[in-house]
Amino acid sequence: MSRTLGELSVLLHARLAGDPTVEISSIASFASAELGDLVFVDDPRHLASAEASHASAILAGEFASRSTKPLLVAAHPRQAFARAAIWLTESAPTAPSTHSTAMVHATAQLDPTVTVEEAAIIRSNVHIAANTIIGAGAVLGPNVTIGRDCRIYPNVTIYPGTTFGDRVIVHAGAVLGSDGFGYVRDAVTGRYEKFPQIGRLVLEDDVEIGANSTVDRGALDETRIRRGTKIDNLVHVGHNVSIGEDVVIAAQTGISGSSTIESNVIIGGQVGIADHVRIEEGAILGAQSGIPSKKVIRGKGIIFWGTPGRPIKSYLKDLATLSRLSKQK
Amino acid sequence: MSRTLGELSVLLHARLAGDPTVEISSIASFASAELGDLVFVDDPRHLASAEASHASAILAGEFASRSTKPLLVAAHPRQAFARAAIWLTESAPTAPSTHSTAMVHATAQLDPTVTVEEAAIIRSNVHIAANTIIGAGAVLGPNVTIGRDCRIYPNVTIYPGTTFGDRVIVHAGAVLGSDGFGYVRDAVTGRYEKFPQIGRLVLEDDVEIGANSTVDRGALDETRIRRGTKIDNLVHVGHNVSIGEDVVIAAQTGISGSSTIESNVIIGGQVGIADHVRIEEGAILGAQSGIPSKKVIRGKGIIFWGTPGRPIKSYLKDLATLSRLSKQK
Amino acid sequence: MSRTLGELSVLLHARLAGDPTVEISSIASFASAELGDLVFVDDPRHLASAEASHASAILAGEFASRSTKPLLVAAHPRQAFARAAIWLTESAPTAPSTHSTAMVHATAQLDPTVTVEEAAIIRSNVHIAANTIIGAGAVLGPNVTIGRDCRIYPNVTIYPGTTFGDRVIVHAGAVLGSDGFGYVRDAVTGRYEKFPQIGRLVLEDDVEIGANSTVDRGALDETRIRRGTKIDNLVHVGHNVSIGEDVVIAAQTGISGSSTIESNVIIGGQVGIADHVRIEEGAILGAQSGIPSKKVIRGKGIIFWGTPGRPIKSYLKDLATLSRLSKQK
Repeated sequence: MSRTLGELSVLLHARLAGDPTVEISSIASFASAELGDLVFVDDPRHLASAEASHASAILAGEFASRSTKPLLVAAHPRQAFARAAIWLTESAPTAPSTHSTAMVHATAQLDPTVTVEEAAIIRSNVHIAANTIIGAGAVLGPNVTIGRDCRIYPNVTIYPGTTFGDRVIVHAGAVLGSDGFGYVRDAVTGRYEKFPQIGRLVLEDDVEIGANSTVDRGALDETRIRRGTKIDNLVHVGHNVSIGEDVVIAAQTGISGSSTIESNVIIGGQVGIADHVRIEEGAILGAQSGIPSKKVIRGKGIIFWGTPGRPIKSYLKDLATLSRLSKQK
Repeated sequence: MSRTLGELSVLLHARLAGDPTVEISSIASFASAELGDLVFVDDPRHLASAEASHASAILAGEFASRSTKPLLVAAHPRQAFARAAIWLTESAPTAPSTHSTAMVHATAQLDPTVTVEEAAIIRSNVHIAANTIIGAGAVLGPNVTIGRDCRIYPNVTIYPGTTFGDRVIVHAGAVLGSDGFGYVRDAVTGRYEKFPQIGRLVLEDDVEIGANSTVDRGALDETRIRRGTKIDNLVHVGHNVSIGEDVVIAAQTGISGSSTIESNVIIGGQVGIADHVRIEEGAILGAQSGIPSKKVIRGKGIIFWGTPGRPIKSYLKDLATLSRLSKQK
Repeated sequence: MSRTLGELSVLLHARLAGDPTVEISSIASFASAELGDLVFVDDPRHLASAEASHASAILAGEFASRSTKPLLVAAHPRQAFARAAIWLTESAPTAPSTHSTAMVHATAQLDPTVTVEEAAIIRSNVHIAANTIIGAGAVLGPNVTIGRDCRIYPNVTIYPGTTFGDRVIVHAGAVLGSDGFGYVRDAVTGRYEKFPQIGRLVLEDDVEIGANSTVDRGALDETRIRRGTKIDNLVHVGHNVSIGEDVVIAAQTGISGSSTIESNVIIGGQVGIADHVRIEEGAILGAQSGIPSKKVIRGKGIIFWGTPGRPIKSYLKDLATLSRLSKQK
């Protein structure tokens, strides 16, 4: 949806230097920009490249005062650009509808503004609030509750009783609310018997779950992912895990049963967190690090790395010591 | 389905102290327990918490002789609780049926007690035995054979010719019997050509496969997962792998082609096992450990850790040595 | 489809020692071979086992001059065997068709030789070229373009605008073109806002993607996987990644945003590659190795191992040093 630079300036609280009537229809990178596009610059060294692009205007940080192109200046240009993108790239909403091949149980309660795509399956007592979109081939088990403005992509499976807040995004192929991995071994036969996995999974507002990630429901209680947490692709979250607000978890990380991740933690890719671990507020776990069972990791803003995870300074010193000794030999 | 404490006492071979007519309708944790729930205690220190809960009765180990609530005493309380859960939480079976949107090939042979959910696809010459449930959107390729009392969750894909025993559980999104990762590189062009992947996959009785896990079929022979083995979410099992009985494999572990995991092995999360490895009977691999190509790991009950995997004692000694030397510097 | 040894000899450019009229109907391993099967031997020590099998003929390397069975001799027996498999095991093509339960948008353009299986969903402006097969339950978003002779297995999800070359194979459950993992954190509230993920994904000719793997589209530009690259199961490829030709990536490896993998690189399983890394032409990354952000790995044919990744010689020396010092203590 097209906007003038003048309109964008108001929407983004950005100072405009240049013609306010210039039409902006999309966002782009320097390389892909065409007439009508907005590009952004958060580093003064890249301003010349932005000016050399085919973009119609530049969104830059406060370092920029003049440019060969019309210029929007914002305190946080990356964030302003992200917000501009929402206004510019959102497609006109299509009329909500339930596709004729979707299968919605008679007891399910869907707001009239909900969209249900082809062959999606919605079981008994499901509740879905306004403007939510359920993707093609998604399966929502009985008693699932989904808030408003959520987006469930195709081929997602949601086990019974799972609850979502508002504005939750779940990418294709994710599995939410599956059985946790819990067994009891028979002392005589050595065979494993299934321990009950009858708890539930709660995803609070503004959570995003990546493609093909899996989040198990609680065994007896709940697994909970709190407001604003973002989870990348192929991540595993075990039963009874508690994840705080505004946590970021990169791809292929795994969190074992009954661990707690407090708010504002940042977790790199392929990190392994064993059971009953506590990662305290604001800690950072470097990629591939491993946290053993029952450990407590504390230190706001401190990066932990390695297996077993230790502060990065200590980890790098260990690596340097080893390298030095190796060379001595 | 509700039971009296007296009935549970008989079913669980548990000693009852208290009123046998108390009605128990479900299981719960201390925190979630309500009237009618059974909770369990396997550690004397938690008995007081159980008594403080809203549960109607407590299932405890032999350490417990009296309680403020009606008490069931069992030799293995965790296992007894798991079995109680089966009796209490199983829903009345719905009448078996094939949903009108399921697509079952004319040559497929399904026992009359099989349930096929919405939009499931069952190809030619598939055989399915009694009481098995095929989830919504699952795809069963030609010549798949599935035993009795199996549960295939939604959106699972099973490639042609895969064979299941009885009581196999496959969670949503898992892919079973896919092509192994095998190529021949052309000496002149450097291009990879596909090596034939025409073998098959066999899952024996009582196997459970986690959500979004992948198990490849054999290249020319078979991949086989034996009786009672339990596999968590996002696990990868390569072609021609042989896994024994009662093996436990935690989330995100990967096992490369032609490796053998003997019975009663326990494998942590994110473990990597290269090709042609043999993990012998009863070994334990700690989370994130890595076993290089062609290695043999032996030692019943010994924990191996690290990359390359070594006995945990040796691994911890290495870590301690490094830490000490780092501090000396 | 059955062939005589004489025909295979011509097709494979292999020298025949024995009766050219022998009928070969399939390929097999020594253990599974039956009358009519061809087995192959690329190591002289295994010739006796091949002769002891029930196979009707043997395909061997130039070391073999005589045998108790009819013999095909090829310079590259493994490759010749792979090619024989294609001729012998390919099933007669079924007549192309779009299943009555598939949902194809009126604006989609499918070559008449395309097959669309049950419940597959093909959105607006999709283009599919000759002989391609779209699996059951697969979802192709708007503006997806797929070349000829491609095979999309069941339950694959392809996000809008993704482009495939010819002969691309995508295994079940893979997700292609999903949103990259990019957010802007609000300086005041600490909340994450979605950075636009509006680029695209291009898979060139002869790419193969394993089951349940995920490949994100570019944020503003593109993610691209070039000709002939083979990717195993449960692999993650982030936004704006560029992968060269004839790259091989084993299971559960993850590649973070904006990294470049040049041609002819070989990557083991569970490798973690951080953002903005460059793996140069022909390097080899051992299983579970980790490459930190912005690193450049160079060295054609050199194996890198460990976290952080270093040449294997150096890594093994470090391990040996540590083991020696541990024992001294």
